[in-house]
Amino acid sequence: MATIESVVVPPQSGVAVRVPEGAALRITDREGQQVSDMFAVFSDLSDFLSARTSRAASWRLFPKVGDPFVSVNYRPMFLFEEDNTPGAHDLLAPPCSAEMYELLGSAGYHPSCSDNFRAAAHSVGWNPEVVPDPVDWFQNTPVDGAGQISVRTALTRPGDSVTLRALADMFVVVTACSMDLPDKKINGDSCTSIGVEVIA
Amino acid sequence: MATIESVVVPPQSGVAVRVPEGAALRITDREGQQVSDMFAVFSDLSDFLSARTSRAASWRLFPKVGDPFVSVNYRPMFLFEEDNTPGAHDLLAPPCSAEMYELLGSAGYHPSCSDNFRAAAHSVGWNPEVVPDPVDWFQNTPVDGAGQISVRTALTRPGDSVTLRALADMFVVVTACSMDLPDKKINGDSCTSIGVEVIA
Repeated sequence: MATIESVVVPPQSGVAVRVPEGAALRITDREGQQVSDMFAVFSDLSDFLSARTSRAASWRLFPKVGDPFVSVNYRPMFLFEEDNTPGAHDLLAPPCSAEMYELLGSAGYHPSCSDNFRAAAHSVGWNPEVVPDPVDWFQNTPVDGAGQISVRTALTRPGDSVTLRALADMFVVVTACSMDLPDKKINGDSCTSIGVEVIA
Repeated sequence: MATIESVVVPPQSGVAVRVPEGAALRITDREGQQVSDMFAVFSDLSDFLSARTSRAASWRLFPKVGDPFVSVNYRPMFLFEEDNTPGAHDLLAPPCSAEMYELLGSAGYHPSCSDNFRAAAHSVGWNPEVVPDPVDWFQNTPVDGAGQISVRTALTRPGDSVTLRALADMFVVVTACSMDLPDKKINGDSCTSIGVEVIA
């Protein structure tokens, strides 16, 4: 077990890392209560991670240890191996975007997981037409049996993490979510950083 | 009130219709227990309907009368105006696809909402990189409070329908879902047709 790469995603930004088949990917909420969107593409850019097909692969809205993550065309990408958090994660929310912040009344340009994804993905040659549906690590937006979604603050404590096993060679984009509007405190009182480690 | 267009979508197929701003779009389950996937794009092809942003616009997994349907970039497309069904519809399921049927063990080529979407959308010049996330009318796949998804047969009776108000000029693709595998009876015992009317 050796760390191949260890990076810190600064608040309200995103990074791309290369993850070889068989490696572990660990995503850490360094300061607590911080959501992190994850996107992934096969290294030949042929197909990418999809929350909608991953939900259909597990028949679950919220991922648990043992669940697979698959691509748009159902090709295996990751296995969810370890969860050192209170367990709230999300496969439903769209990535936040400049258009969403504008609609929510934010003045001027607002950073977003969509724009941070675009920049990081572009750096490895990945330029999809539409920002893919992400896995929202640490996001605490439960639903009730009637399908009503609640927007709550992440439950994670400083240092909480998830670990995935890579089932193929991939590029992975990880963001530290940019949401800081006072009535949508999914990230608590302020946006903080996210740690990313690739371990083989 | 005059019907501009009235078409029948044959079993396991799809059609594209033009829907002008202000018109009503009625989708009818002609024989009962038949799911219908709906996709829509602005007539200038600039942006298209998204289930993920529509869920975030209503904070609901399952659409109800009064809910909006919006595009990837949150532009208003439809208002859900009338529901003449028992009320089960879905904003979660991916469109069925050839890859999904292959994975489920179906022998040889199987028709799918994805391929039927591609063909119908192509006929109006719409060729998105990835098949968009659809609104699954009449689909009965409820979730529980723990986020577990159940796969059940549609509750619709012959002639049940939904009516939407178009908030822009659009092309709309409607499919009659192709799922006929014996352990996934979302469409009951056989795949049947769907009615589509545009009324202004």
